[in-house]
Amino acid sequence: MRIFILNPILEDQDKQNQQRRKDALRNLSETTAPDVELEMRGLSRGAATMESFYDEYVGMKDIVERALEAERLGYNAVVLNCFMNPALEGLRELLEIPVVGAGEAAIYLASMLGDNFSILDPDPPHRTYSHKIVSSLGLTHKLRSVRYLNLGVEGLRGGFEEILERMVGESVGAVEQDGAHVIVLGCTGMMRYSERLAERMKLYDVPVVEPLTSAINVAVALARLGLRQSKLSYPKPAEKKRLR
Amino acid sequence: MRIFILNPILEDQDKQNQQRRKDALRNLSETTAPDVELEMRGLSRGAATMESFYDEYVGMKDIVERALEAERLGYNAVVLNCFMNPALEGLRELLEIPVVGAGEAAIYLASMLGDNFSILDPDPPHRTYSHKIVSSLGLTHKLRSVRYLNLGVEGLRGGFEEILERMVGESVGAVEQDGAHVIVLGCTGMMRYSERLAERMKLYDVPVVEPLTSAINVAVALARLGLRQSKLSYPKPAEKKRLR
Amino acid sequence: MRIFILNPILEDQDKQNQQRRKDALRNLSETTAPDVELEMRGLSRGAATMESFYDEYVGMKDIVERALEAERLGYNAVVLNCFMNPALEGLRELLEIPVVGAGEAAIYLASMLGDNFSILDPDPPHRTYSHKIVSSLGLTHKLRSVRYLNLGVEGLRGGFEEILERMVGESVGAVEQDGAHVIVLGCTGMMRYSERLAERMKLYDVPVVEPLTSAINVAVALARLGLRQSKLSYPKPAEKKRLR
Amino acid sequence: MRIFILNPILEDQDKQNQQRRKDALRNLSETTAPDVELEMRGLSRGAATMESFYDEYVGMKDIVERALEAERLGYNAVVLNCFMNPALEGLRELLEIPVVGAGEAAIYLASMLGDNFSILDPDPPHRTYSHKIVSSLGLTHKLRSVRYLNLGVEGLRGGFEEILERMVGESVGAVEQDGAHVIVLGCTGMMRYSERLAERMKLYDVPVVEPLTSAINVAVALARLGLRQSKLSYPKPAEKKRLR
Amino acid sequence: MRIFILNPILEDQDKQNQQRRKDALRNLSETTAPDVELEMRGLSRGAATMESFYDEYVGMKDIVERALEAERLGYNAVVLNCFMNPALEGLRELLEIPVVGAGEAAIYLASMLGDNFSILDPDPPHRTYSHKIVSSLGLTHKLRSVRYLNLGVEGLRGGFEEILERMVGESVGAVEQDGAHVIVLGCTGMMRYSERLAERMKLYDVPVVEPLTSAINVAVALARLGLRQSKLSYPKPAEKKRLR
Amino acid sequence: MRIFILNPILEDQDKQNQQRRKDALRNLSETTAPDVELEMRGLSRGAATMESFYDEYVGMKDIVERALEAERLGYNAVVLNCFMNPALEGLRELLEIPVVGAGEAAIYLASMLGDNFSILDPDPPHRTYSHKIVSSLGLTHKLRSVRYLNLGVEGLRGGFEEILERMVGESVGAVEQDGAHVIVLGCTGMMRYSERLAERMKLYDVPVVEPLTSAINVAVALARLGLRQSKLSYPKPAEKKRLR
Repeated sequence: MRIFILNPILEDQDKQNQQRRKDALRNLSETTAPDVELEMRGLSRGAATMESFYDEYVGMKDIVERALEAERLGYNAVVLNCFMNPALEGLRELLEIPVVGAGEAAIYLASMLGDNFSILDPDPPHRTYSHKIVSSLGLTHKLRSVRYLNLGVEGLRGGFEEILERMVGESVGAVEQDGAHVIVLGCTGMMRYSERLAERMKLYDVPVVEPLTSAINVAVALARLGLRQSKLSYPKPAEKKRLR
Repeated sequence: MRIFILNPILEDQDKQNQQRRKDALRNLSETTAPDVELEMRGLSRGAATMESFYDEYVGMKDIVERALEAERLGYNAVVLNCFMNPALEGLRELLEIPVVGAGEAAIYLASMLGDNFSILDPDPPHRTYSHKIVSSLGLTHKLRSVRYLNLGVEGLRGGFEEILERMVGESVGAVEQDGAHVIVLGCTGMMRYSERLAERMKLYDVPVVEPLTSAINVAVALARLGLRQSKLSYPKPAEKKRLR
Repeated sequence: MRIFILNPILEDQDKQNQQRRKDALRNLSETTAPDVELEMRGLSRGAATMESFYDEYVGMKDIVERALEAERLGYNAVVLNCFMNPALEGLRELLEIPVVGAGEAAIYLASMLGDNFSILDPDPPHRTYSHKIVSSLGLTHKLRSVRYLNLGVEGLRGGFEEILERMVGESVGAVEQDGAHVIVLGCTGMMRYSERLAERMKLYDVPVVEPLTSAINVAVALARLGLRQSKLSYPKPAEKKRLR
Repeated sequence: MRIFILNPILEDQDKQNQQRRKDALRNLSETTAPDVELEMRGLSRGAATMESFYDEYVGMKDIVERALEAERLGYNAVVLNCFMNPALEGLRELLEIPVVGAGEAAIYLASMLGDNFSILDPDPPHRTYSHKIVSSLGLTHKLRSVRYLNLGVEGLRGGFEEILERMVGESVGAVEQDGAHVIVLGCTGMMRYSERLAERMKLYDVPVVEPLTSAINVAVALARLGLRQSKLSYPKPAEKKRLR
Repeated sequence: MRIFILNPILEDQDKQNQQRRKDALRNLSETTAPDVELEMRGLSRGAATMESFYDEYVGMKDIVERALEAERLGYNAVVLNCFMNPALEGLRELLEIPVVGAGEAAIYLASMLGDNFSILDPDPPHRTYSHKIVSSLGLTHKLRSVRYLNLGVEGLRGGFEEILERMVGESVGAVEQDGAHVIVLGCTGMMRYSERLAERMKLYDVPVVEPLTSAINVAVALARLGLRQSKLSYPKPAEKKRLR
Repeated sequence: MRIFILNPILEDQDKQNQQRRKDALRNLSETTAPDVELEMRGLSRGAATMESFYDEYVGMKDIVERALEAERLGYNAVVLNCFMNPALEGLRELLEIPVVGAGEAAIYLASMLGDNFSILDPDPPHRTYSHKIVSSLGLTHKLRSVRYLNLGVEGLRGGFEEILERMVGESVGAVEQDGAHVIVLGCTGMMRYSERLAERMKLYDVPVVEPLTSAINVAVALARLGLRQSKLSYPKPAEKKRLR
């Protein structure tokens, strides 16, 4: 069972980042079965972070190529490592293996765990991307609130303890003021805070759902069950003239 | 990783049934990771089949006891082997480990695989139990149709090939007439038809979702992720006078 | 016209409680036609109060027996004296006379009286039982807020004036801060506060809907109209092997 | 307890019609408590039948006057004898006693009796008035189908047995083809067929809800409970310059 | 291209008001194409302002007559100059030219401009008329909040700068506290503040939608496209006995 | 007033196509005010037709460039000439002028014209793209049916009379069998049939909404009103490292 994790942003070649990715992969494999192999790759062309539809468009060509290559290399499923699920629909058209988006998987798992959930959004207030994803899944009735960290994706890489406290604060606010029953991390860049935040929220007995690990486990489940996206919903694009 | 499968109906002690359950467990383990152990148990007191709310009430006491025992024995999760998710909410209150219902898991997975789904219901026409489950999850916008086999749960144990043809016929009808993109089996008693039906529906490239295997894989995923139901949604019942 | 009120909790035999029930019946008959006879009974086995799904399960067997007996004794309708509508669906399957739940009746009447309503919930914050009932009726668009008294059902039996003030305070908050147009009492244990609360809320010209009296009047209306639950929605459970 | 039934159409003074109204009142009183007195009045100015918004506008002035007079005469509630609920909102603003519309009451009662309902509409196909009423109550998820008799309101006064057969045919179609669990009569002009139709539909154990008797019983229930429309939803119109 | 603007309130003959209407027409024509002619008329009989259903009923007869006259005079479309869209449905039945309501047009345009909107309502708190209009269009999921100016329609004619500041304050509150992305003016009587408010809100890059100009532009668009209301939704009222 | 029409597909340089575009522009200008100038451009790189998410991705880079150029050249608005609204969200982020999608505009106008609408979809059955667009606008309650022409976009360029008859047939089916009140053309490639189809459907008095002309008129309306997309919903993408 081999799962390909596609980072839809520029691959950063510097050492610190390499280490961060290695750590991530090691953490990730702790949440998967012994027979699961994980690989992770980013883009040669794209945006440094994914924070707008435009960032999605910029990386589109490379995202498609990476995913097609994963299928050729025999991976059992592709996981999109971004809460925004970029290019999810097109990849599902093109590929014959399951394609799972991190945001989608997290929201579905959260829906199974409680009556409602709140999302921690890394962006500044007034963003409605989180609302849009939930709404596109038809699960708006389960969304209690979106809490904004106002850091941006880049800002999530700042001082660990300070940012953790901010996340704890907003999670507590979601529970106490908004009545949230489950916390969903609204960016896969929050993964490194996930374990510590979950510990802190045990006080409330509130689950904290991390999107990338959620998506990997959903992808594994689909692959084991022999399932993939319906080709009636995502038909194979017909051959035609296309200039790229 | 040990998963307890709770059959919310009378345990049948005759040999044919024992064999059927063994076959089922063997099939089930083919869809799970090598480190997953499965156990399955039914009730000493309850109804022979689960086809009404009253059948749920009759088995209630034993369902609760079986589930509490599974927790005491150290299982990592409990899976309810019934599309109707009987006693799901109360068990989630009582237990500290994840409890997953077969119907719920199947409907969520189906929602991830396509734009909509249809359910094959074993019961006679006019039953709306399938509608109620989908509606309670807030996913009615994804339900394209319910197709009735008009057999009853007992009838599913009839002649294999004949019943398979009936299921193929209704699945094709769901796709061609109702526009369904995914087929959900509306009873875990349909499991033995699942593989053959899935093969037949490959013509349409339509996934067939079997609820029990779906629930087991979802339960495993939750357990690996260290997640369980929110205790804000399902609070532990307070101590009080209770006469049973 | 004879209406059977079923208390889905342990029957308390002490004198104070007997008096309380007598008072209740006298109050109740003031809101019914001269030709209506009321009877009220509790359980021999069950929970002392109804505050969780588990409490419902514990009383299930006795609830079913009481209701079947009421039908045998020729009552024209059964009213469930609990906002949570316990066992409502199964009783509707089993009985040929109308079965009405207090929560359901109150929410429908409230929906007819104004653009929206808020519920006074006796439980601690974060409970979503009230949300679930409203949602199961498909009337979430009418629910403005749930206001928590944080007393528990038992706590409602405390000092009258103090609790009344708390209820007035939350009702005023529902109106002024949440924009509620109707107040629904979220527990039939609040009945003794109902009249005084309604008087106090006349200042805002806001109706206060008490669930038990609502359910009795709805049950009488159905019985007079010769109506009962559709047997297509609640089919008579078929004969089968059932061990209790 | 005195209930005023307001016919929002021209009062017909001919003898045949007088007899029909007497019969109606006698039938109606059979579905009410012994202490309920009914009165019924139509308009001096308005349309002969209510089949369009324009028909509502034409009778508006007289409807308002009749309702205000009923309040002055001490009636306990006003019932609008039309499925379209004409002028319902304005009357609720003006009056201090409950105002109940026949369509609204029928749809709420039907919602309590089963999982879904279908409406028998007297009008030609393509009319969406029935849909609009259900949608304005937020109960579209309960509407299974609208079945058109294609007679017009006037046509309902034709040959009894022939029209009854048509209604039976459409009701059976609603149940067998559309999966309806409850039948709602979509015009108070169908009242004279109500009893016979209900008998015929006993075969399916399907309730038939007649709107006028529903509204009267709801109005009585509200009056007994001391409830009326919220004055926050329907504020008393402020004094101002108005030329009529 | 000639558009008839129907003011559904008493025509005020005094000079100040005449001047105000002239100014309005001049402003309005600045937002229309060079080939568009505008006319505006009020009622001889009706209410001084439109703030309740009753106010709508009082003017009903004259509204219908004005609209029919506009059609006879060859206007290409009728625009209802009121956010409440009074008599909109009946006029659409009667007329063969497009009829556009100011509230409806504003809400649809706002829906196209952003993820959600808030409405500035001239009325006191607790009014739900704005909610009702949005809900009747099925766009409640786009409504973020209603902000009440608590002035009444008459009060909007008070001191310009003071009222403007109030509108700015509520608009800023809608954006900063409620998360609104678009501001909709909930009364055509706010038109004179529209331009200044829009300027002030440029700071947030938030569109301000004025209902009357919206409706005129939508009416012009429909007329140019050769479109008008579907006569299946708004059938021509049949000939019948009607006494007015 | 200058409107830029962006064709999100390969620009075809052959003569027949040039003529077709000229005809289209001439037809389009008949539905706009005398002061409106139209320009239309396609892509150098992209897909020959737009029938999948993948086709959208292929043209993404050029779509963005064309739109940015239109803004630089001083156009007042950009109209996307495709029912699928490709790249709509990203363009709204990038541009300071209104961007209007053909599908979105058509669906909103159709919503204003009647109680419901059906879409003529050029694609084979089972496609749910039309459903997705309507659902993303939150207007699913207005969608009566999707009728499939099963031609593909390319097939729309076949024999005129034969295709027209097919469109008439499906439109009549939508009205008579599905109960549609408005017909929406689900592809801007159907524009050349629009006038003739509208004539044929006059029999039913049913509006036929053509998406491109709808979008142009909506864009003009927005530009005249000084409105554009909210920058809170579509924030300007921040400067960052992007490799294209």
